[in-house]
Amino acid sequence: MQAAVMFGYNDLRVTEMPVPRPGPDEVLIRVQACAICGTDPKIVAHGWPNNPPFGQYIPGHEYAGTIVALGEGIADYQVGDRVAVEPHKGCGHCENCIRGFYTTCLNYGNLAAGHRHYGFTVNGGYAEYAVNHVNTLHRIPESLSFDEATLITTAGTAQYGITRIGGVRVGETVVVSGPGPIGLMAAQLVKAEGAGRVILTGTRQERLDLGVELRAADITINIKKQDVVKEVFSLTNGVGADLVIECAGTAEAAKDAVEFTRKNGRVALIGIYQGDIPINLNKVVQWNMTLAGGKAEGDWSLRRVLPLLADGRVKAGPLITHRFPLREINQGIKTFVGREGGAIKVVIHP
Amino acid sequence: MQAAVMFGYNDLRVTEMPVPRPGPDEVLIRVQACAICGTDPKIVAHGWPNNPPFGQYIPGHEYAGTIVALGEGIADYQVGDRVAVEPHKGCGHCENCIRGFYTTCLNYGNLAAGHRHYGFTVNGGYAEYAVNHVNTLHRIPESLSFDEATLITTAGTAQYGITRIGGVRVGETVVVSGPGPIGLMAAQLVKAEGAGRVILTGTRQERLDLGVELRAADITINIKKQDVVKEVFSLTNGVGADLVIECAGTAEAAKDAVEFTRKNGRVALIGIYQGDIPINLNKVVQWNMTLAGGKAEGDWSLRRVLPLLADGRVKAGPLITHRFPLREINQGIKTFVGREGGAIKVVIHP
Amino acid sequence: MQAAVMFGYNDLRVTEMPVPRPGPDEVLIRVQACAICGTDPKIVAHGWPNNPPFGQYIPGHEYAGTIVALGEGIADYQVGDRVAVEPHKGCGHCENCIRGFYTTCLNYGNLAAGHRHYGFTVNGGYAEYAVNHVNTLHRIPESLSFDEATLITTAGTAQYGITRIGGVRVGETVVVSGPGPIGLMAAQLVKAEGAGRVILTGTRQERLDLGVELRAADITINIKKQDVVKEVFSLTNGVGADLVIECAGTAEAAKDAVEFTRKNGRVALIGIYQGDIPINLNKVVQWNMTLAGGKAEGDWSLRRVLPLLADGRVKAGPLITHRFPLREINQGIKTFVGREGGAIKVVIHP
Amino acid sequence: MQAAVMFGYNDLRVTEMPVPRPGPDEVLIRVQACAICGTDPKIVAHGWPNNPPFGQYIPGHEYAGTIVALGEGIADYQVGDRVAVEPHKGCGHCENCIRGFYTTCLNYGNLAAGHRHYGFTVNGGYAEYAVNHVNTLHRIPESLSFDEATLITTAGTAQYGITRIGGVRVGETVVVSGPGPIGLMAAQLVKAEGAGRVILTGTRQERLDLGVELRAADITINIKKQDVVKEVFSLTNGVGADLVIECAGTAEAAKDAVEFTRKNGRVALIGIYQGDIPINLNKVVQWNMTLAGGKAEGDWSLRRVLPLLADGRVKAGPLITHRFPLREINQGIKTFVGREGGAIKVVIHP
Repeated sequence: MQAAVMFGYNDLRVTEMPVPRPGPDEVLIRVQACAICGTDPKIVAHGWPNNPPFGQYIPGHEYAGTIVALGEGIADYQVGDRVAVEPHKGCGHCENCIRGFYTTCLNYGNLAAGHRHYGFTVNGGYAEYAVNHVNTLHRIPESLSFDEATLITTAGTAQYGITRIGGVRVGETVVVSGPGPIGLMAAQLVKAEGAGRVILTGTRQERLDLGVELRAADITINIKKQDVVKEVFSLTNGVGADLVIECAGTAEAAKDAVEFTRKNGRVALIGIYQGDIPINLNKVVQWNMTLAGGKAEGDWSLRRVLPLLADGRVKAGPLITHRFPLREINQGIKTFVGREGGAIKVVIHP
Repeated sequence: MQAAVMFGYNDLRVTEMPVPRPGPDEVLIRVQACAICGTDPKIVAHGWPNNPPFGQYIPGHEYAGTIVALGEGIADYQVGDRVAVEPHKGCGHCENCIRGFYTTCLNYGNLAAGHRHYGFTVNGGYAEYAVNHVNTLHRIPESLSFDEATLITTAGTAQYGITRIGGVRVGETVVVSGPGPIGLMAAQLVKAEGAGRVILTGTRQERLDLGVELRAADITINIKKQDVVKEVFSLTNGVGADLVIECAGTAEAAKDAVEFTRKNGRVALIGIYQGDIPINLNKVVQWNMTLAGGKAEGDWSLRRVLPLLADGRVKAGPLITHRFPLREINQGIKTFVGREGGAIKVVIHP
Repeated sequence: MQAAVMFGYNDLRVTEMPVPRPGPDEVLIRVQACAICGTDPKIVAHGWPNNPPFGQYIPGHEYAGTIVALGEGIADYQVGDRVAVEPHKGCGHCENCIRGFYTTCLNYGNLAAGHRHYGFTVNGGYAEYAVNHVNTLHRIPESLSFDEATLITTAGTAQYGITRIGGVRVGETVVVSGPGPIGLMAAQLVKAEGAGRVILTGTRQERLDLGVELRAADITINIKKQDVVKEVFSLTNGVGADLVIECAGTAEAAKDAVEFTRKNGRVALIGIYQGDIPINLNKVVQWNMTLAGGKAEGDWSLRRVLPLLADGRVKAGPLITHRFPLREINQGIKTFVGREGGAIKVVIHP
Repeated sequence: MQAAVMFGYNDLRVTEMPVPRPGPDEVLIRVQACAICGTDPKIVAHGWPNNPPFGQYIPGHEYAGTIVALGEGIADYQVGDRVAVEPHKGCGHCENCIRGFYTTCLNYGNLAAGHRHYGFTVNGGYAEYAVNHVNTLHRIPESLSFDEATLITTAGTAQYGITRIGGVRVGETVVVSGPGPIGLMAAQLVKAEGAGRVILTGTRQERLDLGVELRAADITINIKKQDVVKEVFSLTNGVGADLVIECAGTAEAAKDAVEFTRKNGRVALIGIYQGDIPINLNKVVQWNMTLAGGKAEGDWSLRRVLPLLADGRVKAGPLITHRFPLREINQGIKTFVGREGGAIKVVIHP
C-alpha cells in the first residue's frame, strides 16, 4: 500500500508499505480521509516519544474509512462499515483505564501492556490501510462524509474539555478562546449544549466570522483590536464569564482566561502550552474558580457527539478548507502550518 | 384592586381587595398575566398548608407584570421593569438556604423566619397587584410577552429537575415522560442542552405531536397504543434510555421509567405522585441507576433558562392555548382541569 | 484439586477437579480462604443466569490466596504475591466498561466478549485453585490475614454504594440500615470518611452492638423496639438524616429510608430487594432527594479501601464468626444461612 | 468596652469604644477569644478594601464568645449560648448567594446590600463585644473551649478547599503542602475523611512533626532537605499524588503541587499567592488535572466540621501556642508574625 512514512526528522515520504494485519479485537480499515492535526507538523519535525522506528512510522490520527477485514473476536462490526477512529486506546489494566480515564493511561506507550496511540506510538492513518482496536471505532452516520468524519476526533476533544470542567450549565455566558478547529467545534458544542451566549475570541477575523456563520458565536472579540478582559467584563455587567473554554494555547490566552472568569466560574484548558505559564493563582483562590485540563478525546466523547454532527447541530464541513491526495501530504502540511489560503482544516486522501 | 380570593374550599371569588404595600427588599408589581398551574385547582379544592386565612387568600404563582413601586433597599430594579417571578423565597437562614437549596427551605411556611411561597403561604398573582421579594424577580427579555413570561417558572421547574439529576450529557437518548406543560418544556430543554435523541411519551396524541412541532421530540410513543418499555429498549438496541425526565406523575409512568432506563442510567422525578409508588428497586441497585427528585424551580433556574426563551430555542407561546380575564378565572380553571378545547396552558389576565 | 462443585440445584459437592490454567493476562491462585456471601446460598438453591454447566461449576467469589503461576502478559504480579480478588471483570469494550462502569458491563455473561463474573458465570473460589484476570487482583497488605482479605470485596461493595451516592460529606448524620456484613462495613467506612454521627439500625441487637464496638456506630436503633422514622427525626431535631446507606434489602427498610431522610438528603441503595417496592416517591420529589443504586464493587473500590483496612481504621476480623474446611462447605452455608451461633461472616478454607 | 482599633496603618491601639447594638437577625456576643489569622498583620499594615474608617475599625475575625443580647427576629439562639462565628455573610440577593456561594458574594463590601465581612468591612472580634448576623453563628460543642473554638474558622477554611476540589476520595494519597494552621487542619481533615496516606510537606521541621503527632501525617517531607517532586513520585511508585491541598501560598509550592500530582489528579488551592505564578499548564492539560481555588469558609463548612472537632478526630488545641490579653494584642501580632517561640496560632483574650 501507499503510505506516508517518517524516515527521519522532517523527512516524511510517501512510499510502498506492507498492508498491516488486524490482530484479535482489531479491524483493518481502508482509510478514505485523514485530517492534519496541529500535532502532526510537530511530529514531522521532532518525532514523538515511543514512536515506531524511522522507516516504518506512519503518522496521522484523525482518520475515517471502511472496514475491510475483521480480526478475531470482532462481533459488533462488519466488513463494509464506515468508521471513524479515536487515537487513544488504553491498556485496560491500569487504575486510570479501569476507572474510565483511558486517555491518561498509566501505561502510555507500553505496547506490551496493550496501550496504543494511533499515529503516535503505533502507525496511523496517512496510509491506504490502517489497523485499529475495536475500542477506537465509531460508526459514521450516513449524513456525514468521510472528510467530515475526520473531524469527529476534533469534536470529541473539544467535548472532553467541556465534560472535564463539568459541562455547560444552561444559560451560561461562555467564552471560547481560540477559533482554530477545536475552538470552532467547542463554540458549536457549548451552544448546542445550552450556553446562553457564546463569546468567541481570537486574532484572525475570518475565523471569528466563521464562528458567527456557524451560529455558534453570538459575539466575537478580536483580541488584537480590543482589550479582551475589559470587553468580557463589559459584556457581563462587570461579573465576568461563567465558563471559559481555552483552546488558544498561548500564555496570554491562558492568563486572560483566568482574568475574565467570574467569581465561582470555571476554565477548561485544552490548548497546548509551552513552558511555565504565569497565571493569577490568587484570583483562582479568591474568586473560587475551577480549572480543568482535558486530555484528548476521553470518555467515549466521539460517540457522544455523533448525534449532534449527524443532524447538523454541529458542523464539520465548513472547517475543512483544503484537500490533498496522499502523495501531496507535505504540501498539505505546509498549507496547514502556513494557514495558506485561510487554511483551517486540511484533509489528506490516501 | 380586583383579585381572586379564596373564601373557602371550592369558593374562589373575584372581589375588591386593598393593594398590598412592598416592604424592605420587596417590589409592587402590576400583574399582567398569571398562568394556571396544576396545583392551583388542588388549592382551590383543598387549600394549602399554612395558606393565608380564607377571605384574604389570593392564589396564583406563575405571574408576570410591571414593577410599579419599590420597597426600601431595592437597588437593582426600577419602576417600569417587566418582571416574571418565581414562587419560592427561602428564609435565607437555614442550612438548606445558606447552601443554595431554597426550594427546600427548612422554614417552609414560617413567615416570621422570612420564608415566602407566593400564591401558597402568602398572596400571589390572581390580582391586579402583587408584592414580591427581590430574590424572586427575573427581568423579562424584550422578545417575550407577559403571557409567555408566565411560563418561565414552568421552564425553570423542568430545568431544575434536569439540573438535579446532573444535567443532560451530550448525545444522550432522553425519554421525557408526560407531555404536559412541564414535560413539553423539559423536552425542549433537554434537546437544547445537547440530548442526542428525545423520546416523548404520553397518552394524548395532540400533545405528543406538539412536542414534535416544537422540534423537541424526535420520536413519540403513545403509551396507550404501544408497550413503552419494549419500545424504548427497541429504539436503543436493547440498552435502554440514558436519561428519563419523569413528568407524568402517575404510578405507572414512574414504574416504567425505572424499567426502561439503561444500566448506569438516570431518572429525574418531577411529577406529583399519590401514595406509595411500587418501583423495581432491585433494578435500581443492579443496574446502578440514579434517581433524583427536583423540588420546584430551585438554583435560580428561571434566570438560567431565560436566554433560551429569549432567542426562541425554547418556546412558551405554543403551550398557551387559552386566555381569560380575571373575572372569568373559574371558567379558566374549569377549562384547564377539563382540558377543554385541548387546553394545555391557560393564562389569566388581571 | 479439591473443589466444591454444583451438580444440580441444592447439590453442592466437594470433589476432585482439574487445576485450571491461566490464559493471557490471567494468574493461577492457590486459594487460601473464600467467604460465603449472601448470594451463595441463592446460587446453591437456584443457580445463576449463565452459570457454567452443572458438574463443572465452582461457585465462591470472595476469595484470597497466593499467586502460583502467571499467564502470558502478566507484568505487575509475581509468583508468591498474596492477592484478594474482585468478582467482576468487564468486557472492556462496551460503553459502560470504556467509561469505567465495569460492574454494569453491557456484555454481562458473554464470555466470548471477555466478561467474567467469578463464581457466577465462570468458576470461583471454593476450590484449591482458581484463575483470575489481572484486572481483578489486589495485593493484600501484610497486616491482613487471608481470612480478613476475603472481606475486602465486602468493604468494596459497601464503598461503591457510598461512592455512587456522592460520598460522605464531612459531618453528616448517616444512617446505615441493616447491620449485616455489608452494613457493618458501610458503618465503619462512613465513619472513617468523615461522617459526623453514624446511626446503625436493624433487628439483631448483637449485630447493632458490634457496630458500636467497632467504633463505627454512635447510636443504634433496634427497629423491632423503636419507631425508626420517629427516632431518626427526633435525633436530628426534626430534620432527618443527611445520608442513608440502605443495606437491609427489605421493603420496609427501603420505605423507611426514604421517610427519614432530610430535605435535600440522599439514599444509597445496596440491598437486594424482592419485587416492586412501594416508596413515597412524592417525598423524593418534594424533599429534593437523590437515590442511587450501587452495583457491586465497581470503580476499583477494593483497591481504594485497602489502606483503611491495612491500618485498622476499618476492621474485617470481628465480622468473621466461623471457619470451615472446604469439605464442610455445606455445613458452613447452613451455619451462615441459619445465622447459627450468631454467624455473621463464615469463611471456607480450601 | 475595650477594643483594638485601627487608627491608621500600623497603628492598632486598645481603647474605649461603645458597645455595638444588634440589629434585626443579629446577636451581641461577649467575645471570649479571638485568634490571629495570617491576614490580620496585613490588615494592620495596609488596611483592607472597604474597611470601616480609621478610629472606628476593629479587626479580628476568628472569634468565639457568649451571646448576651438578641436582635429582633432571632429564634434559634438564646442569651447564654456559646458560639463561634464565621467571617463571611453574603448579601443574600446576588446569584452567588442565592446559589449558596456566599463567600464569593457579588456585593462584597456593599453594606447597603447586606454583605458583611466581619473584621474586614465591618467590625470584628478584637473587642469585648461584637455583633454578628445569625447566619454566621455556630454553637460550640461542650467539649471545646473558647480558645479552641476560634480555630473552627481555620478548620472550615481548610474544609472548604477540600470540598471545592471534590472532597477526599477514600484511600487516596494526599499531599498537604504547608504546615501552618490551615495546613495542619487540612491534614487532620483529609485523614479523618478517608485519605489513605497523608504526606505533609514544608520547611519547618517542628510543624511537620506536629502533623505526625496529631496522627494526621503519615509521612513528612522537609522541602529544604529533600526534592519534594522526586520524593512524592518515589513514594507513589512513580504515579504521583492523587490529591494535593496547597496551603503554603508560595510560587514554588504551587508549581511543585502541579508537578507531583498524578495523571487525573487534583489540586486544591487555598494559599495566598503574590503576583502571577508560573505553573506547568501543559501538564494540567496533558495529565487531565483539576485545580480548584477555595475562597474562605463557604458552604457552611464551620458547622460541618464541628462534629469532628467535638469528638477529637480533629484537634485545635495543639495548634494554639500563645495567648495574650487584649491590651497586649500588638505583642501577640509580633509573636505570630515572627513565629517567636515556635508560634503557630496566637489567641487574644478580650
